[in-house]
Amino acid sequence: MTLSEMNKEQLSAFQQETLARYNDFKAQGLCLNMSRGNPCKEQLELSVDMLDVFNDGDFMSENGIDVRNYGLLDGIPEAKKLFSDMIGVGEDEVIIFGNSSLNAMYWAIQTAFNKGVLGSTPWSKLDKVKFLCPVPGYDRHFKVTEFFGVEMINIPMTATGPDMDMIEKLVSEDEAIKGIWCVPQYSNPDGICYSDETVKRFAALKPKAKDFRIFWDNAYCIHHLTENPKCILNILEEAKKVGNENIVYIFGSTSKVTFPGAGVAVMGASKENVEALKKFLGISIISYDKMNQLRHVKFFGTFENMTEHMKKHMHIIAPKFKLVLDVLNKEIAPLGIGEWTEPKGGYFVSFNALDGCAKRIVKLCSEAGVTLTGAGATFPYGVDPRDRNIRIAPTYPSIEDLAKALEIFVTSVKLASAEKLLREAK
Amino acid sequence: MTLSEMNKEQLSAFQQETLARYNDFKAQGLCLNMSRGNPCKEQLELSVDMLDVFNDGDFMSENGIDVRNYGLLDGIPEAKKLFSDMIGVGEDEVIIFGNSSLNAMYWAIQTAFNKGVLGSTPWSKLDKVKFLCPVPGYDRHFKVTEFFGVEMINIPMTATGPDMDMIEKLVSEDEAIKGIWCVPQYSNPDGICYSDETVKRFAALKPKAKDFRIFWDNAYCIHHLTENPKCILNILEEAKKVGNENIVYIFGSTSKVTFPGAGVAVMGASKENVEALKKFLGISIISYDKMNQLRHVKFFGTFENMTEHMKKHMHIIAPKFKLVLDVLNKEIAPLGIGEWTEPKGGYFVSFNALDGCAKRIVKLCSEAGVTLTGAGATFPYGVDPRDRNIRIAPTYPSIEDLAKALEIFVTSVKLASAEKLLREAK
Repeated sequence: MTLSEMNKEQLSAFQQETLARYNDFKAQGLCLNMSRGNPCKEQLELSVDMLDVFNDGDFMSENGIDVRNYGLLDGIPEAKKLFSDMIGVGEDEVIIFGNSSLNAMYWAIQTAFNKGVLGSTPWSKLDKVKFLCPVPGYDRHFKVTEFFGVEMINIPMTATGPDMDMIEKLVSEDEAIKGIWCVPQYSNPDGICYSDETVKRFAALKPKAKDFRIFWDNAYCIHHLTENPKCILNILEEAKKVGNENIVYIFGSTSKVTFPGAGVAVMGASKENVEALKKFLGISIISYDKMNQLRHVKFFGTFENMTEHMKKHMHIIAPKFKLVLDVLNKEIAPLGIGEWTEPKGGYFVSFNALDGCAKRIVKLCSEAGVTLTGAGATFPYGVDPRDRNIRIAPTYPSIEDLAKALEIFVTSVKLASAEKLLREAK
Repeated sequence: MTLSEMNKEQLSAFQQETLARYNDFKAQGLCLNMSRGNPCKEQLELSVDMLDVFNDGDFMSENGIDVRNYGLLDGIPEAKKLFSDMIGVGEDEVIIFGNSSLNAMYWAIQTAFNKGVLGSTPWSKLDKVKFLCPVPGYDRHFKVTEFFGVEMINIPMTATGPDMDMIEKLVSEDEAIKGIWCVPQYSNPDGICYSDETVKRFAALKPKAKDFRIFWDNAYCIHHLTENPKCILNILEEAKKVGNENIVYIFGSTSKVTFPGAGVAVMGASKENVEALKKFLGISIISYDKMNQLRHVKFFGTFENMTEHMKKHMHIIAPKFKLVLDVLNKEIAPLGIGEWTEPKGGYFVSFNALDGCAKRIVKLCSEAGVTLTGAGATFPYGVDPRDRNIRIAPTYPSIEDLAKALEIFVTSVKLASAEKLLREAK
């Protein structure tokens, strides 16, 4: 029997029973964290041999520059080769950044605000700048555009990507719309892969604003949870086919390949975009950490080796995702009080509770010692209009801790749902 | 006899003789670089053992965070301790950045433009923002303020620091003046150390603009060329004495302590400034490279060890500075065609040619295979009003290459000076 099929008495009994269970958990004084997409210790150990690659005493990049010194603003050639393969662009269509792709995105937007895009009016001189935000999405993306005073417009996600009809209509009509945030492969948090049609329609977008850019954050491009993954279409190639190659900025990083604190971030774009951006990049920094770039290159050698390396991550984290789905299927599905995604990659399971329950669930979990991403965080301005989406990040805890945290989570979902239905039954 | 004492015939003979010598050099097809303050290979080798510090397999910061993972936006506690000692602030008055202090300064200014300073009007909303620029100064500072559309006002340097009378007058009158660029210890390029009085007057500045900040780039705070160096006064301490501790942002880095491409940058400021800035920092990045922070801490242990380490740098580069001064004293002093500084630290010798000769000298050097920092680079907008200042960076070349480069430099100075005096004699 689902919860909504229960009468008031049944609901009340269910609530009492669940509350007792919840209070038992609370009394245990646990402290578990499922809030952020952090790799676990076992994953971090996978890349520790990378720290020995300079034992050969060779610090020269292949073009004869000592990576320990200043210079090579846009990266060493061998890093450009490796990471352009990762994000699917050419070696002359890439800039290698520091340890943070978020920082590269922030910089790209900040540069557009100060200097425009390929000679357009600086966005800071415009009355209004708007971004499209597929929801639910990545909270840190939304924080960046919020920081710069950008008006954010929610775009619903579908099983094949964001609602393209809505996007095409909006960008063709409103010149103030300057960009869109996308996580095209294993979207954050839904884990949706944009379909071929979606990518083609993005590649062919003809926005009214000539300085519109797709911020294509391909954060999980090689972060698969299955043995034979399907990768999304290459948007830059598709855009070139229709003469639209300046439409997209692509981002990626090794934060969840090697070390989240000490990886390498990368940006890909058309040659014209890259050349224009490089002129401004040198104002903000002399050069990024080329030792870390060479460290990565020496450790992986080839992109093929990187993808092999990712299988080791998969073997560690796939069982955690399976546990989440097993528990939700067993505990929540029969009650009809939630829906969730079954991601084939990425770092999250996206859970939709009954409307109006997300904040309450996150609060209940928190009071019982389980930290989740704040309810609403997956929406611009932290406002989930239906207050239902919760992002579950299962990678960091051990399987044992994850199991405990999930028990508390499903108990909280049940309790909040019963409370809601009881309120409505009054 | 100085060049200006020569009659036209003598000058002409001098010019012919110098030109012949210059053409001999040119024919050698040399390729030498004295353009940037790059450490030499021998200096880079001093820190290579830093790469082995994780052989112990211990990646935990002292507060129990794994430095390989996300987190600790403002730095690990032990890095705060070490680097707050370096720049002379408290552990709660510091933010640890990535590999670039220039990037930290850029970020601080960009943040002021977007969000103001401690709640002031964002600078982007003001009609005009001005910065004071002691000249000659650091080209990359000026490029940052130029990027943001700041109007830059030249302030003459004196032997004790920038002209404080002029600074005090300007900032007390003009609310549009929001900052000043300073390299207080071994100024770039003059190598001047701000006197105690200068530091005290900076610390006590009462600008009309409440959101005025001193950008105190203490890039060379431990980069001495003598055994018993005198350090400048601690500006934050002086500012506290007069209740003015929010006036200054302090910057430093290990770019010329460990590796220019892979050091650690740091910012110091009052607690109030630091707390306000940290709120915005998290928008642009999740965390900086904490592995590199811990690498530095494990390598040095204490600030005392860092200063000992700097003596090794001194032993490598002090002879290069001595060579520059010896050659200038021997070749240029008797002719009265230039003046220069005798720095006790830092990375540069600042050379002032006869007015109107700097561009010509740099061009002559370039055509004979010696790259210098572009003439004018040490002034805002690249405009040296007297076209006389040239920044000599002697650290990177070997002593042998430096000797060759200096021969070409002094020959170019002589030639350009003779040309000028002959023109004027007509």
